[in-house]
Amino acid sequence: MSKQIIVVGGVALGPKVACRIKRLDPTIKVTIIDKDNLISYGGCGIPYYVGGDVSELEGLRSTMAHVLRDEAYFKNIKGVDVITRAEVFAIDRVAKVVHVRHLDTNKEETLSYDQLVLSTGSMPIIPPLPGVDLKGVTPVANLHHASFIKDQLSNGRVKNAVVIGGGAIGIEMAEALSDLWGVETTLIEMTDQLLPQAFGKDMALLIKNNMEKKGVQVLLSEKVTQLNGNNDNFVQSVQTTCRTIPCDLVIMAAGVRPNGELAKQSGIATGVYGGILVDQQMRTSDPSIFAGGDCVELCHLVSGKNIPVALGSLANRQGRVIGTTIAGKRASFLGTVGSFCIKIFDLGVARAGLTSKQAKDAGFDPVHSVVVQADRAHFYPTMNLMMLKLIADRKSRRVLGVEAIGQAGDAVKARVDAVAPLLHHNITVDDISNLEVAYAPPFASAMDIINNAANSLDNIIEGRQNPIDVIDFLDMFKNGTGIVLDVRNPIQGAPFVKQYGDRWCNINQEELIHRLNDVPKQYPLFLVCGSGPRSYETQLLLKNHQWNHEQMFNVQGGMGMIKGSDLDFELE
Amino acid sequence: MSKQIIVVGGVALGPKVACRIKRLDPTIKVTIIDKDNLISYGGCGIPYYVGGDVSELEGLRSTMAHVLRDEAYFKNIKGVDVITRAEVFAIDRVAKVVHVRHLDTNKEETLSYDQLVLSTGSMPIIPPLPGVDLKGVTPVANLHHASFIKDQLSNGRVKNAVVIGGGAIGIEMAEALSDLWGVETTLIEMTDQLLPQAFGKDMALLIKNNMEKKGVQVLLSEKVTQLNGNNDNFVQSVQTTCRTIPCDLVIMAAGVRPNGELAKQSGIATGVYGGILVDQQMRTSDPSIFAGGDCVELCHLVSGKNIPVALGSLANRQGRVIGTTIAGKRASFLGTVGSFCIKIFDLGVARAGLTSKQAKDAGFDPVHSVVVQADRAHFYPTMNLMMLKLIADRKSRRVLGVEAIGQAGDAVKARVDAVAPLLHHNITVDDISNLEVAYAPPFASAMDIINNAANSLDNIIEGRQNPIDVIDFLDMFKNGTGIVLDVRNPIQGAPFVKQYGDRWCNINQEELIHRLNDVPKQYPLFLVCGSGPRSYETQLLLKNHQWNHEQMFNVQGGMGMIKGSDLDFELE
Repeated sequence: MSKQIIVVGGVALGPKVACRIKRLDPTIKVTIIDKDNLISYGGCGIPYYVGGDVSELEGLRSTMAHVLRDEAYFKNIKGVDVITRAEVFAIDRVAKVVHVRHLDTNKEETLSYDQLVLSTGSMPIIPPLPGVDLKGVTPVANLHHASFIKDQLSNGRVKNAVVIGGGAIGIEMAEALSDLWGVETTLIEMTDQLLPQAFGKDMALLIKNNMEKKGVQVLLSEKVTQLNGNNDNFVQSVQTTCRTIPCDLVIMAAGVRPNGELAKQSGIATGVYGGILVDQQMRTSDPSIFAGGDCVELCHLVSGKNIPVALGSLANRQGRVIGTTIAGKRASFLGTVGSFCIKIFDLGVARAGLTSKQAKDAGFDPVHSVVVQADRAHFYPTMNLMMLKLIADRKSRRVLGVEAIGQAGDAVKARVDAVAPLLHHNITVDDISNLEVAYAPPFASAMDIINNAANSLDNIIEGRQNPIDVIDFLDMFKNGTGIVLDVRNPIQGAPFVKQYGDRWCNINQEELIHRLNDVPKQYPLFLVCGSGPRSYETQLLLKNHQWNHEQMFNVQGGMGMIKGSDLDFELE
Repeated sequence: MSKQIIVVGGVALGPKVACRIKRLDPTIKVTIIDKDNLISYGGCGIPYYVGGDVSELEGLRSTMAHVLRDEAYFKNIKGVDVITRAEVFAIDRVAKVVHVRHLDTNKEETLSYDQLVLSTGSMPIIPPLPGVDLKGVTPVANLHHASFIKDQLSNGRVKNAVVIGGGAIGIEMAEALSDLWGVETTLIEMTDQLLPQAFGKDMALLIKNNMEKKGVQVLLSEKVTQLNGNNDNFVQSVQTTCRTIPCDLVIMAAGVRPNGELAKQSGIATGVYGGILVDQQMRTSDPSIFAGGDCVELCHLVSGKNIPVALGSLANRQGRVIGTTIAGKRASFLGTVGSFCIKIFDLGVARAGLTSKQAKDAGFDPVHSVVVQADRAHFYPTMNLMMLKLIADRKSRRVLGVEAIGQAGDAVKARVDAVAPLLHHNITVDDISNLEVAYAPPFASAMDIINNAANSLDNIIEGRQNPIDVIDFLDMFKNGTGIVLDVRNPIQGAPFVKQYGDRWCNINQEELIHRLNDVPKQYPLFLVCGSGPRSYETQLLLKNHQWNHEQMFNVQGGMGMIKGSDLDFELE
């Protein structure tokens, strides 16, 4: 009898494993079992379906060639059997069988396997709040949720919406609701920043301000306490520690956790996050059982610690490795460097590696640069500013993480993707200084922003540049501490001099060498230019003229970061 | 007395070296000497100035903050002395002096150095053709050439232009002339493809077809024999081995070569290309003399051979290394992987590493995949097709090169940049299968094109996929050899069946398993789908049903590549 493979879960990893096995060895019998009637859909596309970029739900279920990925597709084209609306509720690892319950008939059956693949995905975290069961309160975990939300919107039932959770799904849903549908949308995040797992607070602040400019109200450090319903048990408001927000729809986007339940019940090892533990062939503690996708924990290749990552891209790549392995060939999946990107209205945002906080937690001594620079040659007409943060370990100079934000999303992602695959190769700041990204004026500066971020970080580590993060600068300056030396031209500086008087000294860098007497010797002295390089040169100049280097701070990213971080500074 | 540094050459590398030295050690005296009166300009921006994207020449000479980089700028802001219109005509390495001639006064002087930096750039290759000295015949090597060309254009003196040379500058100039100015432009390249140093013939063919669609006549394998002038000694036609082309302007873009003359005359070691030889600190054979930028030869980190690369990005990065070294600190520049990108009308084109031909010449056994795929999630509305070629060594599976083409230039460059920095780390096809590029539907597919290119290459190396390049397929099929099995849907297939009759069999992949009897058993059998994956699955299916695997070929990139390569196939 031919080898029997059972795959539990029919989205992302499961189908990938199944098809790869059949392509390598068509004699193997492969069966996918899924609780749902809809399988193999692009779950990450849900916000774009809700927001209207994808008009039909079938768009998320079809191939590039517009073929629907249903049971018949898998049978006829892939040679894979699919059983839908069926739950695997137990694994007997000794007998090597799974116990299946058919949800429509409630009948049970037992299916035997030679190898089993767990693709059980993740589960939305639903905080145990009063009112979470009200109608109109929904997570965004599958196509049924997506349909419900879009129905509510297209039937005009949503004027105000609340999104609970400032992670990727929460942000994407907030955009989807407000951008096309014009729904008054409030996003509530209980920590003090958006995307806390992905970005430092400074970069996250740029994202928050951009979202607010686009009309989404973003509430940070605020906790939802309960949800209130009307007489029809439909949600009508969300109550937080600070206020009550009327709404007709609540999106629960408080994160997801690996669904390792079935594995755990079967005695398969799981980790601290509840995710299934796997080796580099994605094999669980039971050598006949593989797992991958959102239900497992992966080794973070920079921190060395296990983390769960719910991303279709990782699931697909792992799926191929499992399929190859089951078909008797060699493949391995080492882990993740936490690459991540997201479109937020007209911003592209990407990152990889560790944030400064994560780096500290992992035992590194993180130091970072923040560079603001043109995303192509500064003379090229479609040029926009990009913000990029590079994080390294101070002593070893090993690069630990990168974060980038800009309007040209593909270009933002390009910089992060160029660094990400190197992160587990122990590359240093010096390697990134010379990172050979391709150059032509329509696509990059001759000295690319990623090179300059490393150069700047080198200058910081070597003590030549004395940096201050824009958030710290704003805290101090707005609280009355310190003087700004702004070395941009007088047209740019004038509105700030008018606003801040003696606390804002504006001397054009071109005149500075001749006007040193006009430079205040008061401290802390914050050095500011458009994006950072001129204020760095100013720092060197003043140091050479006996200003106190320790009390002079180069504001990272200059006015580019200041304006993005605090809209009060948009004076021009 | 303070240390004296002389920098010969004031564009790209020279200024970078000078400024870096002064930032690290302001006590060092640095002097830049340049023949021209214009220095520190963005030479790579010339085509965009000519084409109108950059309106004023000053745009190429100014900083991001719109400050002109002239002598005063370097003096006041950078602390660097600049001597323009002065030629260093000899180096006395024993006395450590340079002999300088001031071009406006013809006076000579001698300047001593502690360390000397050669930033003498490249020289355009001017083929010794009859008529190259005619008026209206110009290279594009500096801002004076740029001004001349733009003056001719804006004064309406150019109706027809000929560009000689199908490298990057030739292509950019052809676009600049034809796109904004509507000049009838003919580009002549003597080899059988555009960009022969950068791309395989198949990718170059896509570029050629796209240029022709945009109105540029591209002549390959054609040699210019002479240039003919009118009575005013102004060029009026270009004569080739095949025809005479009337024209009012001829752009000489037959390539550049390193300007290592001064070094060579001084006894400094130069290489086979005439470029100055340097170590990893960019030090020449004379330890007191450094060189970098277009005038040196760099180690190609994949082939191990020396090559010249004229790119402002490499020059800038090398400049920082030289500056750091001269200031007494450690830095190094290992070489290049040949990263390159170019915008060609609405196409973005990028590459890194070796082409198949270069790989063969370097002793590898190259094998490649060509993948056509959506540049973002296929359901995302701004999706476009991207073409990507991945080249590896068959036995070691080491990745040797990558080439990509698509409409979203930043996204094209992103894929190449993600692979390029890894190329000298001996990464294999398997590493690229799992390359962790960031994923979200607006920016990528869950299984990114770069991952799929590696997956496809793995299948080819392992003998599961039997590929044929589109150029070879077209050659054979158009010459009457072979049958096509097109597994796209009947609407897509019908025009081809109508056109090619029995030689084009169209069976939808969904029906294939039930219609195996309709599949021809004639060989060679060319398997075609929209982009490649379905025809690959077809190949596996037919092999399992006793078709001859060796005589069945999966056309790489499917109809995406076929239509891009031969406009006769645009039947729908």
